[in-house]
Amino acid sequence: MQELASGGRRRNRASSLKLTDVAPPPSTWWPGGLGKVSTHVVVYARLITNGKDHGVHGIIVQLRSLDDHTPLPGITIGDIGMKFGNGAYNSMDNGFLMFDHFRIPRDQMLMRLSKVTRDGKYVASDVPRQLVYGTMVYVRQSIVSNASTALARAVCIATRYSAVRRQFGSQNGGTKTQVIDYKTQQNRLFPLLASAYAFRFVGEWLKWLYTDVTQRLEASDFATLPEAHACTAGLKSMTTSATSDGIEECRKLCGGHGYLWCSGLSELFDVYVPACTYEEDNVVLQLQVARFLMKTVSQLSFVNVPSGTTVYMGRAKHLLQCSSGVQKVEDWLNPDMVMEAFEARALRMAVTCANNLSKFENQEQGFSELLADLVEVAIAHCQLIVVSKFIAKVEGKIEGKGVKKQLKNLCYIYALYLLHKHLGDFLRTKSVTPEQVALVNDQLRSLYSQLRPNAVALVDAFDYTYHYLGYVLGRYDGNVYPKLFEEALKDPLNDSVVPDGYREYIRPLIKQDFRSAKL
Amino acid sequence: MQELASGGRRRNRASSLKLTDVAPPPSTWWPGGLGKVSTHVVVYARLITNGKDHGVHGIIVQLRSLDDHTPLPGITIGDIGMKFGNGAYNSMDNGFLMFDHFRIPRDQMLMRLSKVTRDGKYVASDVPRQLVYGTMVYVRQSIVSNASTALARAVCIATRYSAVRRQFGSQNGGTKTQVIDYKTQQNRLFPLLASAYAFRFVGEWLKWLYTDVTQRLEASDFATLPEAHACTAGLKSMTTSATSDGIEECRKLCGGHGYLWCSGLSELFDVYVPACTYEEDNVVLQLQVARFLMKTVSQLSFVNVPSGTTVYMGRAKHLLQCSSGVQKVEDWLNPDMVMEAFEARALRMAVTCANNLSKFENQEQGFSELLADLVEVAIAHCQLIVVSKFIAKVEGKIEGKGVKKQLKNLCYIYALYLLHKHLGDFLRTKSVTPEQVALVNDQLRSLYSQLRPNAVALVDAFDYTYHYLGYVLGRYDGNVYPKLFEEALKDPLNDSVVPDGYREYIRPLIKQDFRSAKL
Repeated sequence: MQELASGGRRRNRASSLKLTDVAPPPSTWWPGGLGKVSTHVVVYARLITNGKDHGVHGIIVQLRSLDDHTPLPGITIGDIGMKFGNGAYNSMDNGFLMFDHFRIPRDQMLMRLSKVTRDGKYVASDVPRQLVYGTMVYVRQSIVSNASTALARAVCIATRYSAVRRQFGSQNGGTKTQVIDYKTQQNRLFPLLASAYAFRFVGEWLKWLYTDVTQRLEASDFATLPEAHACTAGLKSMTTSATSDGIEECRKLCGGHGYLWCSGLSELFDVYVPACTYEEDNVVLQLQVARFLMKTVSQLSFVNVPSGTTVYMGRAKHLLQCSSGVQKVEDWLNPDMVMEAFEARALRMAVTCANNLSKFENQEQGFSELLADLVEVAIAHCQLIVVSKFIAKVEGKIEGKGVKKQLKNLCYIYALYLLHKHLGDFLRTKSVTPEQVALVNDQLRSLYSQLRPNAVALVDAFDYTYHYLGYVLGRYDGNVYPKLFEEALKDPLNDSVVPDGYREYIRPLIKQDFRSAKL
Repeated sequence: MQELASGGRRRNRASSLKLTDVAPPPSTWWPGGLGKVSTHVVVYARLITNGKDHGVHGIIVQLRSLDDHTPLPGITIGDIGMKFGNGAYNSMDNGFLMFDHFRIPRDQMLMRLSKVTRDGKYVASDVPRQLVYGTMVYVRQSIVSNASTALARAVCIATRYSAVRRQFGSQNGGTKTQVIDYKTQQNRLFPLLASAYAFRFVGEWLKWLYTDVTQRLEASDFATLPEAHACTAGLKSMTTSATSDGIEECRKLCGGHGYLWCSGLSELFDVYVPACTYEEDNVVLQLQVARFLMKTVSQLSFVNVPSGTTVYMGRAKHLLQCSSGVQKVEDWLNPDMVMEAFEARALRMAVTCANNLSKFENQEQGFSELLADLVEVAIAHCQLIVVSKFIAKVEGKIEGKGVKKQLKNLCYIYALYLLHKHLGDFLRTKSVTPEQVALVNDQLRSLYSQLRPNAVALVDAFDYTYHYLGYVLGRYDGNVYPKLFEEALKDPLNDSVVPDGYREYIRPLIKQDFRSAKL
């Protein structure tokens, strides 16, 4: 007597499992390849045997006949319909799946670990559940690397086109100013360029982290898993959110032409944004980070010494009472001073939040009430990780003449841009003073000026092909306008100069001959 | 001898004007209705007669034969190609237009005001140039109203679906929590709901402002025009940027289903975002506001008393040295205290920026250098306007039982959300203290709880039709899931259960019969 149920009905048959009939919402919606192609799926559902719920388990389910591809009786399956954008995921076979009184042979359950015996007895696995997090760490670290690639692509297009495009700045018919020379353009574009590099370096580090965790898991050492899990969850969230927003900002930075399909940016946006939702919603992920951080803070007074990316929390005593030593503009290029500001901000926010939580009698109720604050705590921690990995990178050995100098520029642009963007956090935690903030802005302007001559080279360094960047605005040769025109001429609407429908709709209007009009 | 030229060549013919041949970039790109339909356009181009440039003037130009709709000799015209999204502006006849040695009869110039005589003499108009701003004020105030409508539409969909959708919150098979009950959802959604109302009220006020300015212009009173112009420019920028971001945030707030075409949100985003670019790029607009504010600040020490939306600058002495009197959570519902915080922040940022500008020997060079700061000054001023109009609205007479209470909630959610979002500004100008900031967060949480029971009613109040909202997620009856399924079934892909191409591509793979495969 066992059942895999999202509802609650049970049957008395020992040799098969049953998926209860599901009223809409269907039991699943979205999986790729499901709607039209797949013949089999692995269904994850709650396993209930002898009235006891044993949690989610996987079973192999055949969906379609292997002879004629028709769905098996009791299975409804199909395409979920159009998605965002023109292109993007519209070529993906995202499907829905519904079961109606569908039984599955017991031995199709994935039983290498947990088992159900012929007489319906559940045999639990002795393999630690945490192992499943290893896969999550892997998937999410790859999403961080992809974020860097996607953002770099958008930044490459916007940077090159900003160097080609000229607007204003000429009073008497002379050459207009390249838009990349405007501080407003630099102030929006260069932090995104820096972010693309930052996400690349933190992505590389996450790859190392995954390898490290995997080796430890194989040796049954689970100690670093919670921190690695929190870390990848938070960075998946932070980098995909920043990348989605960044791609759209790059589109706006290309002015009206960014809105053309041939800018390459609208397709990139449409295809990228689901990253904020898949593999767990970005806000939910930050709450997982926050829960881990609150636990770490609550244990600070005990013997536990925080490790990995929370190692700064071990210096809580110092970070809670220190004040930033920044006195002049150049101090904001001092790695220790920058790091201390980010660490003080992250720690103080975490500690304040933990204190506020402790005022609630019921911890879970407190957690629910303070969700918005908790997300901010998590973001502060994640930003600290990215900044620290970027600084570690540029303080290390870097090949190539002048490369280190350029990467340092990008690193401090990234850090100070974040500081400026989240100024409220830094000021309310008194991690910096209003006077030090004024110096941040001065330093940023100076860094933008230093970056400007190398901006195009820094996107050329991504070495993206013309095809990969998508069409016209991001051309390596800068030959944008003739190509934009060529691209427009390819549109089927331009196969004729007098459009279809002229005789039926336009001519009768012009000739005031409404009787012959098809309007 | 006269010429309308974007280049610089001249001809010696008195009876016609010449548009110089334009290499790509074409002389125009984007105008709606141009590519396939229009027979005539008004071209705005620089008028050069007898070697002197008289600035931009309008001339009527015939583009196509009125007999067979073919373009006239010397004219190249067509469609600019695909644009962002699937739908949106893709049904708009956005066109390009190029002239090659094209001459226009002199009398096709719009000569009610400025004129060119038969012998090529330019006769200037005595009508003040500022009059043209009247039209800009009109167009931009209508964009602000549209922003409110578009944002309200997105918020309506997201709010209703957040009340329908349930996620987590159930440990033992009971009912899951409505996502609208999560503080993280409220923290993102309710400020957008408040913004939709805020933009509506400021839009109504702008309509009044336009009427007022028009009446003054008719009486040759230009005194209020610069302020009205700055005000509408800034509010167009601020409301369209917030609405674009807000629509995408609403989409994300609907989870995975927001990414479906039938959410209605992707189409709304695609069609809305150009508002950030058309009628002048949003950043350029804020710089116009900033220029006006810098001028106002520089005149503060003279007899001039600032008027209209800059009237607070007349109280500079007080606002530069006052400190916020907020001591307890309830004080953040005090209109005077909220207004003073916003006024102090806006004024202090403007004065600081003006001081920084004055350190440059060359004012224009200083302006270029400080562009990013100037944008922030302008945004602070615009936010103050919206908050002040919202407060004025809710402090006035409002019909309907309980309506005032609900609008007051929205008003303070809007103001305190902005304060939280731009906390860095408020803190670095010392307009509020870190201790007062903690009270802002407490008050916001309380306001969200009070708003929650009325959230759905507050979007129902927009009274949008099912058709207008677009499809499924925003249904008034909340009957989302069966309709989502119905919608999916309408997709042509679901006309068959065995997809086209099964025999050619899928079956040979399943049967391992690769010789018959078309892969």
